[in-house]
Amino acid sequence: MSAVKPLLLNLFEMNCVSHITHGLWRLPGNRRHTFEDVEYWTTLARTAEEAGFDAVFLADVVGAYDVFRGGPETALREGLQIPSNDPLLVVPAMAVVTEHLGFGVTFSTSYEPPFAFARRMSTLDHLTRGRVGWNVVTSYLPNAARNFGLADEIEHDHRYAIADEFMEVVYKLWEGSWDDDAVVADRDRGVYTDPTRVRYVHHTGEHFRVAGPHLTSPSPQRTPLVVQATASRAGIEFAGRHAELVFTGGPDEASVRRTIAAVREAAVRHGRQAEDVKFVVQASVVTGRTAAEVAAKVAEHERFDSLDGRLAHASLPFDPTAHPRDRTVGEALAAEGRLDDPATRGFPLEQRIADFLDATGRFARTFSVAGEPHVVVAEIERWLDDVGIDGINLTQHHSYGTLEDFGEFVVPRLRERGRRPEGYVKGQTMRERFGGAGPHLPPDHPGRRFAGGRGLRGRT
Amino acid sequence: MSAVKPLLLNLFEMNCVSHITHGLWRLPGNRRHTFEDVEYWTTLARTAEEAGFDAVFLADVVGAYDVFRGGPETALREGLQIPSNDPLLVVPAMAVVTEHLGFGVTFSTSYEPPFAFARRMSTLDHLTRGRVGWNVVTSYLPNAARNFGLADEIEHDHRYAIADEFMEVVYKLWEGSWDDDAVVADRDRGVYTDPTRVRYVHHTGEHFRVAGPHLTSPSPQRTPLVVQATASRAGIEFAGRHAELVFTGGPDEASVRRTIAAVREAAVRHGRQAEDVKFVVQASVVTGRTAAEVAAKVAEHERFDSLDGRLAHASLPFDPTAHPRDRTVGEALAAEGRLDDPATRGFPLEQRIADFLDATGRFARTFSVAGEPHVVVAEIERWLDDVGIDGINLTQHHSYGTLEDFGEFVVPRLRERGRRPEGYVKGQTMRERFGGAGPHLPPDHPGRRFAGGRGLRGRT
Repeated sequence: MSAVKPLLLNLFEMNCVSHITHGLWRLPGNRRHTFEDVEYWTTLARTAEEAGFDAVFLADVVGAYDVFRGGPETALREGLQIPSNDPLLVVPAMAVVTEHLGFGVTFSTSYEPPFAFARRMSTLDHLTRGRVGWNVVTSYLPNAARNFGLADEIEHDHRYAIADEFMEVVYKLWEGSWDDDAVVADRDRGVYTDPTRVRYVHHTGEHFRVAGPHLTSPSPQRTPLVVQATASRAGIEFAGRHAELVFTGGPDEASVRRTIAAVREAAVRHGRQAEDVKFVVQASVVTGRTAAEVAAKVAEHERFDSLDGRLAHASLPFDPTAHPRDRTVGEALAAEGRLDDPATRGFPLEQRIADFLDATGRFARTFSVAGEPHVVVAEIERWLDDVGIDGINLTQHHSYGTLEDFGEFVVPRLRERGRRPEGYVKGQTMRERFGGAGPHLPPDHPGRRFAGGRGLRGRT
Repeated sequence: MSAVKPLLLNLFEMNCVSHITHGLWRLPGNRRHTFEDVEYWTTLARTAEEAGFDAVFLADVVGAYDVFRGGPETALREGLQIPSNDPLLVVPAMAVVTEHLGFGVTFSTSYEPPFAFARRMSTLDHLTRGRVGWNVVTSYLPNAARNFGLADEIEHDHRYAIADEFMEVVYKLWEGSWDDDAVVADRDRGVYTDPTRVRYVHHTGEHFRVAGPHLTSPSPQRTPLVVQATASRAGIEFAGRHAELVFTGGPDEASVRRTIAAVREAAVRHGRQAEDVKFVVQASVVTGRTAAEVAAKVAEHERFDSLDGRLAHASLPFDPTAHPRDRTVGEALAAEGRLDDPATRGFPLEQRIADFLDATGRFARTFSVAGEPHVVVAEIERWLDDVGIDGINLTQHHSYGTLEDFGEFVVPRLRERGRRPEGYVKGQTMRERFGGAGPHLPPDHPGRRFAGGRGLRGRT
């Protein structure tokens, strides 16, 4: 054990042009517009592994942002998460050119069948030798629901009920359907798999019916590292039950502390250990050789920052840019006759439009630091030691500049201070990388209750 | 144009141990048991590209073969398509290490939502720069249906009705949702996509409701090369409407000729050109330096051939191995009281069990040749010129031996005879490789009726 708390270090990504730093795809030298090419991903992965990152995490959505201004036009113009490509399919390409880097992918439990997804994740876990994690989301875009046969979003708490059953199905497939020693590959006896060690799962629930057996043999981790991002009450309960790594955030440090405490409490309530859940916040870091270099980068980011991108990303149900900047939000809503509109409930009616615009959708509001390397490291250490996080998801302003800067200026100093390991542990799985004692779910995790076929309905 | 008809050359694969040559995973030096590793696929792809193959085609199933002997035990023991991993996910890994090789993947229209699949294929088409094809299947295993919430298989013709609507949805997304010039990536104006050139698809049909817009920008081919394997009446009609490449076969050459003629007729009936459909048969080829070397390989294949594997693959609804070999099939069924069982209808009642066993599920029954290279080439030429096929899917007995033998012994002779090109055409898409005039569907293909947004319900 190191004397100081180490930092978990992820690169935050999405298979699109403009993920969260809207407008910045236009920065000179930014390669984001090449995200459709396989070379974008192999270069990214090699660079992240050279810089010693733990993992690349890919966000995802399965619909267009078409609430703001009543259509997808702003999102399209901004490249705001559309076009966006499938996140799972870039992982095998990155796996070919790396040996240690982990890969987190986002997949929603709301629209696609668990059987096929379970097989895809097992395939990835095999291909990467246990280097994958799954960021469980339930989706939130109305357009996403309409891409999958529904008239509108599924109501929030109901999405989590579906997600809970989805988890039960995939745990049964990943943990219960095949025993560890099922594959014997005995050439002499002509037995590839011992059939007595494989079983149907026969899941019959409110939302899913799945027979099994799982099509894939046990992969290095079986269940990939379970990751979740949330702050809602249903989300915290879900994270307490399932998550091993939580992406958190909030308007201020106090709210991050509250979420961490609430998830840990929920974990204990579900029979798990409080420290079995790690917490990572999205971090905006701008650094460089000198204070002047940093200031120049910040100024350039400010210059390219897109207000429209941020407003569309926030799915704002009214258009504040259509009003004079010195009006208040309340006056603007009144002028549109929408003061009583449920969609505008909770807006800061007293705030001036100018201030409202400035605050809306600013990326990485909570953890944001611009400075020379020692300033960045001090801020990271404060968050680790005072706020209580375990790691960061580094927001990319520039690809690959943000990553290269962090690797060149920040990682060496973090290593000096014992916050980052000198290199990788060979053969380590994603779960072990993020604090797990072994490649598999810990014994008190709810996924493990199906191990060895316990709790399954058996053969017929 | 070459004076002789060229051969289309595919390697037939599946992401599993035992695809169609059952028992042969045990052959000395066979690497099939390493299919779960990414290196299996990168080596395969490099070897296939070095040998000048057009494409690797991956079969797929989404359930276990559990009809024979009333359970999945035989399939598990044999490694018969279980464990089996997702086929799409190995394509990006192979794309990283190749420049020209095409990739065909199998996906069923019966169980998963078209919106997500359309995005996955567009992602692959981008990552491979237009080197992908889609083998459209409707699935046939009862266990597959039970993995996706159904009690049993969807009835055959109804599966094709669903498939037709599935095609309509993906054509709308691939061909109609984005114009060619939608992505402008204009850094100065801050416009990534021109929103006037992207539209919702608003599909509302009997089986699917999909709003769109497609999440992915137009990929090199838009619609990947459409491939289909069938011989049923509904299948032939479907192929005539949609397929650009057909995998065909049958008990004899006459039946192959009939299928080719029937699909071409169906194509013309649907307003397409007869020659717009190419035909490929599964081919079993054993070759080597000398006749003795070939004979030794054939003998080794015979020795490892698994009867149980073939019977389970055929989903045989009774177990002929439980009967004396000199009984007839009819006597065996009578002994089981199953002469009137609908599942055993059509069996050759007069045939001796010994002969029945010998015939059942023999791989590549139609096109099967063992001999020195000139013998193999003569047989290929006969099939091209007399039977009227356009190419073969090479069945692997040994990985990578079958591929290496074909590359070393057969390809050079095919080149000498003008049946194979000397090298690859740089930047060629899968569609062009298989005879298309350009990267996109031809104008008379039904997928093209949505080009430019024609036939879509438009913005709202």
